[in-house]
Amino acid sequence: MIISLIEKKKHGQELTWDEIHRMIDAYVQKQIPDYQMSAFLMAVWFQGMTMEETFALTDAMIHSGKVLDLHDLEGVSCDKHSTGGVGDKTSLVLVPLVAACGGVVAKMSGRGLGHTGGTIDKLESIPGFQTTMEPECFKQIVKQVHAAIIGQSSDFVVADQLLYALRDVTGTIDSIPLIASSIMSKKIAAGSDVILLDVKYGEGAFMKTKEEAVKLAECMCQIGKRFNRKMQSVISNMNEPLGLAIGNALEVKEAIETLHGKGPKDFQTLCQEEAAILLHMADLVSSKEEGIEKTRVALENDQAFFKFLEMVTAQGGDASFVLDPSRLPKAAYVTDLYSKKTGTISTLHALSLGLLAMELGAGRKKKGEAIDPSVGIVLTHKQGEYVDEDTCLAHIHSNHILDDKWIQKFYESIEIK
Amino acid sequence: MIISLIEKKKHGQELTWDEIHRMIDAYVQKQIPDYQMSAFLMAVWFQGMTMEETFALTDAMIHSGKVLDLHDLEGVSCDKHSTGGVGDKTSLVLVPLVAACGGVVAKMSGRGLGHTGGTIDKLESIPGFQTTMEPECFKQIVKQVHAAIIGQSSDFVVADQLLYALRDVTGTIDSIPLIASSIMSKKIAAGSDVILLDVKYGEGAFMKTKEEAVKLAECMCQIGKRFNRKMQSVISNMNEPLGLAIGNALEVKEAIETLHGKGPKDFQTLCQEEAAILLHMADLVSSKEEGIEKTRVALENDQAFFKFLEMVTAQGGDASFVLDPSRLPKAAYVTDLYSKKTGTISTLHALSLGLLAMELGAGRKKKGEAIDPSVGIVLTHKQGEYVDEDTCLAHIHSNHILDDKWIQKFYESIEIK
Repeated sequence: MIISLIEKKKHGQELTWDEIHRMIDAYVQKQIPDYQMSAFLMAVWFQGMTMEETFALTDAMIHSGKVLDLHDLEGVSCDKHSTGGVGDKTSLVLVPLVAACGGVVAKMSGRGLGHTGGTIDKLESIPGFQTTMEPECFKQIVKQVHAAIIGQSSDFVVADQLLYALRDVTGTIDSIPLIASSIMSKKIAAGSDVILLDVKYGEGAFMKTKEEAVKLAECMCQIGKRFNRKMQSVISNMNEPLGLAIGNALEVKEAIETLHGKGPKDFQTLCQEEAAILLHMADLVSSKEEGIEKTRVALENDQAFFKFLEMVTAQGGDASFVLDPSRLPKAAYVTDLYSKKTGTISTLHALSLGLLAMELGAGRKKKGEAIDPSVGIVLTHKQGEYVDEDTCLAHIHSNHILDDKWIQKFYESIEIK
Repeated sequence: MIISLIEKKKHGQELTWDEIHRMIDAYVQKQIPDYQMSAFLMAVWFQGMTMEETFALTDAMIHSGKVLDLHDLEGVSCDKHSTGGVGDKTSLVLVPLVAACGGVVAKMSGRGLGHTGGTIDKLESIPGFQTTMEPECFKQIVKQVHAAIIGQSSDFVVADQLLYALRDVTGTIDSIPLIASSIMSKKIAAGSDVILLDVKYGEGAFMKTKEEAVKLAECMCQIGKRFNRKMQSVISNMNEPLGLAIGNALEVKEAIETLHGKGPKDFQTLCQEEAAILLHMADLVSSKEEGIEKTRVALENDQAFFKFLEMVTAQGGDASFVLDPSRLPKAAYVTDLYSKKTGTISTLHALSLGLLAMELGAGRKKKGEAIDPSVGIVLTHKQGEYVDEDTCLAHIHSNHILDDKWIQKFYESIEIK
């Protein structure tokens, strides 16, 4: 059966809804071997998929596992997905901020891989914080707090987990219909009514150009709408890291500062923008501008911060670490690296900085590796800022003395003109 | 490592000689899983391979197993490969015919699959005939008789056997560089100096059009020349079966008639043509015309037939079955099917007739299945011939009574206008 589907796709013919469902079901039940599925995926890489095929694949993946039903919660549930960036701790701020403004956010997040961090890894810097729990328990917290973040459960979208692992080792990751259906099957299974997508492009992202990012966003929005979700997307450049901190506990600290209204400007603006869009989509404000104003107030009067505290407590985390972030895991060494030039920072290479943080232990090269919550990079300047010779460029938090090669790569990742 | 090669091929970049060798070696040593190799093969299906890549793949496959060295034999060794047709018993006639005219032929052949028959299956209709033997024993027979036909040994081109099995189930058979390197690695490992290729096209062949067949032939000739073989090719249409008989013992019988100079005209002409080309390539005649004349004499005076008898005997076969072909395995029923129309036979659909013979038991659907040597179809007319209503179209040899569906399909496979 699968051979005829491979042949169809190879020759650019459209597969039917039923064909795709039967194929995915058979694959999950181990009736189709990996070597046939990988040949099919490579044919998809070359031929693409029509929207109808993409809908069918998404639907088949959604129904390969459990699905969360949030309709018995009060209010419109909101979710947000970012395609991953360096220093992207948006969810940590966005979830409590939207909840503080009247929204309901039940978020399932992933772990970090390669140069991009993961929300779940960051939250685990807070002692006691639980990121795995039964769906009913998760829903209970959302009901009480209106905000919760857990890790993607292994009972959900089983087909996507199998397919993603296969794509990862067969050169079939970078295909828009495959990326879109993978992300959207998870978002739809997670149950929210309103979904905001943040699609990154640039050197460190899957999508290298803005055009590709727009295509991916459009494909995901079409999928969401097909499954009766309210969809919106923002396209953002990730050539430079988001905010200043890269590394788990360091990013939690920066998120907490932002929740006090004292975060890096670029990051705080993005969080307010995205929160305002979600509030507007959920009909909690009548315009995005009203949403921005509402979030400004929630940050100023610490309502967003207290919502975060409430969420951390509900999820078993030790609130004292949020109240006093200096207690979060700390690295043995903090090394200040100074500029060797005078001029304007033209480029902060996000990909290189992400990989450098990973080398310190902040990220994992392979799935399942342990990470070190304490280490990372805290930049002191952003692109476009002027630096003197001997201006400190960054504080490097590490548990070993930095070697020359690392330091050299650090200087190469910052261009000053 | 393999992932970077998949990525290279995906993006249409050329792989180096070393990269291809390392990949094939690693695959044979089970260091590369099938799911990565099938993704690579699908990328090749889309992107093709340069000639340099194709040479490298052929070389890597040759060296994945034993290689036969025929240089200690006297004379130029000849080989011929047909891409497979319905009713194609050419090797049975060609090998003794060339040997009877002074050539040396050491031929490794395959078994049949699907609608195409295999030389080895056909020869096994003769009781006692050995198709597997040690290379040294094979060479000894070639030395004495100047003609021998054995099955492809499993010690040869190990990589090709693994890759072919994988291609068969992943929709990656129909790729010219993959077909060409698969065939040529076997031909080169078999050791002959001179190789004639018979590339078929038409509804029942891998190559559907003449243009594709020419491309495949050119690719194979280039590979052969790269490995210092003298190469030539003939392109032939296989829309109608070759000769009149389809089925193992029935084809052996027709081959024996042809060796007596009494075979179907189309088939006898092709055998003489191909033999003449081989004799010319081996410098045993000064022109193809001289070769044709030489083969005519060898058929007329039964020299070719006696060479076949000598070969069968040397390979353990019972000569009495060759001397009296009526002793070959016989089916329980012979049903004559008559024309229902008056007119000219415009098409004898080779593919359908091949499949119908397979259904009778003459061929196998899957590798390793047993076949029935006695059954098959013997046509009485070829395309372009005039038939009356009630002219017999074919004698059907079967071990069960023909069912209506089979008979209906038989009539559908013969067009009379």
